[in-house]
Amino acid sequence: MKKKTSKPTSRYAARGVSAGKEEVHAAVDKLDAGLFPGSFCKITRDFLTGSKNLCNAIHSDGSGTKSIIAYLQYKESGDASVFRGISQDSIVMNIDDLLCIGAFDRILISNTVNRNARNFPGEALAQLISGAEDFLEKLRSYGMKIYSGGGETADVGDLTGAVVVDTCAVAVMARKNVISGAKITPGLAIVGLSSSGRANYEEFENSGIGSNGLTSARHDMLSPYYAKKYPETFDAGTDKKLVYCGPYRLGDKLEGSDMSVGEALLSPTRTYAPVIMKIAKKHPGLMRGLVHCSGGGQTKCLRFGRGVHFVKDALFPVPPVFRAIQKASGTSDAEMHEVYNMGHRMEVYCKPSDVGKVAKIAGDFGVEARQIGRTEKSARPDGKNHLTITRGDLVLEYGPRK
Amino acid sequence: MKKKTSKPTSRYAARGVSAGKEEVHAAVDKLDAGLFPGSFCKITRDFLTGSKNLCNAIHSDGSGTKSIIAYLQYKESGDASVFRGISQDSIVMNIDDLLCIGAFDRILISNTVNRNARNFPGEALAQLISGAEDFLEKLRSYGMKIYSGGGETADVGDLTGAVVVDTCAVAVMARKNVISGAKITPGLAIVGLSSSGRANYEEFENSGIGSNGLTSARHDMLSPYYAKKYPETFDAGTDKKLVYCGPYRLGDKLEGSDMSVGEALLSPTRTYAPVIMKIAKKHPGLMRGLVHCSGGGQTKCLRFGRGVHFVKDALFPVPPVFRAIQKASGTSDAEMHEVYNMGHRMEVYCKPSDVGKVAKIAGDFGVEARQIGRTEKSARPDGKNHLTITRGDLVLEYGPRK
Repeated sequence: MKKKTSKPTSRYAARGVSAGKEEVHAAVDKLDAGLFPGSFCKITRDFLTGSKNLCNAIHSDGSGTKSIIAYLQYKESGDASVFRGISQDSIVMNIDDLLCIGAFDRILISNTVNRNARNFPGEALAQLISGAEDFLEKLRSYGMKIYSGGGETADVGDLTGAVVVDTCAVAVMARKNVISGAKITPGLAIVGLSSSGRANYEEFENSGIGSNGLTSARHDMLSPYYAKKYPETFDAGTDKKLVYCGPYRLGDKLEGSDMSVGEALLSPTRTYAPVIMKIAKKHPGLMRGLVHCSGGGQTKCLRFGRGVHFVKDALFPVPPVFRAIQKASGTSDAEMHEVYNMGHRMEVYCKPSDVGKVAKIAGDFGVEARQIGRTEKSARPDGKNHLTITRGDLVLEYGPRK
Repeated sequence: MKKKTSKPTSRYAARGVSAGKEEVHAAVDKLDAGLFPGSFCKITRDFLTGSKNLCNAIHSDGSGTKSIIAYLQYKESGDASVFRGISQDSIVMNIDDLLCIGAFDRILISNTVNRNARNFPGEALAQLISGAEDFLEKLRSYGMKIYSGGGETADVGDLTGAVVVDTCAVAVMARKNVISGAKITPGLAIVGLSSSGRANYEEFENSGIGSNGLTSARHDMLSPYYAKKYPETFDAGTDKKLVYCGPYRLGDKLEGSDMSVGEALLSPTRTYAPVIMKIAKKHPGLMRGLVHCSGGGQTKCLRFGRGVHFVKDALFPVPPVFRAIQKASGTSDAEMHEVYNMGHRMEVYCKPSDVGKVAKIAGDFGVEARQIGRTEKSARPDGKNHLTITRGDLVLEYGPRK
């Protein structure tokens, strides 16, 4: 039995991405932690209307460097519709975080596009805007009261060679409906909701990719062809050996899949909103906790609950897109699970007897769900959270996170 | 008497900035205009709590390329505190827009920082974060219930060589308190609130600059020294003749002022919140309309009211920073007034008999205010809005805007 311990990634850092974000946490630590300090998103008093029964969540995130892959695809094909998925990525990175605190009723959003107008013209912008509206319409058709209240497009060609897409999402919710991290305790089942396949609310098969780790995936997967042709899409300060150093072009076939590499990397981040809203409606109180495996991948859970040993020993098979990224980059198993979701991007924590209910509802939406693990009492002397991932002979141990 | 008609600027477009944003408007036109279509910001139904008496505004904007000037200053001096002003810029670009619809009571904000972690390290990020918090604290001391509910920092070095700072601000307000554009009619006085000098709520003298037109100002004012040393701060696709083609270094003295060029260009965008809140409190209903002269400068008013001839014939003297920008760039008078505020960044539309009340309150805060013009009936055959600016012998005519 192999044992591995994760180390912060050097390739990641060499590309100017501080995966651990220690500095950020240091600066943020001085700020107020909000009403429910252990919750997945910061929850504040109801500043917006001043009610004692309500609370607010305002959340910002975006598609990150996934927009660059869309940009490459657009430049190569001339088809600007590829940016519709980027709008979805940016929105889902917000709403699927908000799902984790139980904010899935009323949501108001605003999108911000920082673009290089020369490289990213009006036809592409129009696709971003209509893509966002159509995705919101789809969410509304599943019962989420989500609306866009505006947006901003800034022409900042000196700040970006391509396009930066961000979303801000706001919710006002009843305090009693908040799902905080506090109920993630030993003795629960962890149900994973698959990130790949095709949900019946999706138009195409999903590769399983989200909007995290795309800087590494892009450079490690895509060929030097793109470096030469699109110098506006990488940091000139990065070691050239780490820039577009992969084997593929976007149109190449992804091994073990019917998708092209471009389709797989650009697969729009799946939302779990229809599934989670249905579980909440049909089985109030069932969900003891929710973890969106975004930044941090399968180790994201470590930040939630207290005194927990997360045991994940029945994960989904690794989808082809992640296998290809690992093969192309030579990334360790430990790091792959720290950066990518590796098979499921949403975890429902519930009583073991409730697993079937979750799986049934997810299955009805065409999203495979299974118990991928359980929570036990922390086995560490300091009682802090830790995580063990087992895949056959492979065992990965992860210690507590800040 | 000279007559000039404004033409969209070629230097502006050559730098990849589409000042008119025609494409953006085209894409946005399909979207719902909200509850008060002529208002300064989009106002929606109360999606957040579902009340018939309330409405929502969600607003996104940022410091734009002003962050690049701060970046240059930081790299040259090593002093990261210069980014505190950038936080203020980003916040004020939102809240001073919200002032114009009467949303100055409860506001929830979130800041997003997209950075190149290699060039913009943790010490700089920490200043952005604490600068934002301190500025919010100051606003609260003047009675605004404004709070930050979170934020996001993304390491996207392939998307930016420096740092992009954005804010999203949200308000829930009573529909009856909305200041819409509908009351901007012929027969009103236009009171300008000075953008320069030192308000008693400011720590330093303000040059009058906001966060608009800074791409042009930076390149036209600053010397080729910066192009050579900081290639990460401009678009490689821009004609080299238009990149950092000015006479100054940041430490050079600004003519006609005690400030350096760097201090003048980085002067944090003044907020008018203390003044506007006081007028609203002391004289409810006095303000028939408010126009924040941000993008569009002195022509911003053209988008508001119907059938109005805006006559501005008693503007503030042009502050030194704008005179220097004009001199360095050779920009026409017409264009200068279309890009920069040229002396006042906030306009209060009121009955002529109320001018003194506005001036008194502004003066108490150390902000000079004066009647800079009036509204008359449109003199155009199509009855659309138009604007005449007169400064001595100079007459500038501007037609309707989309």
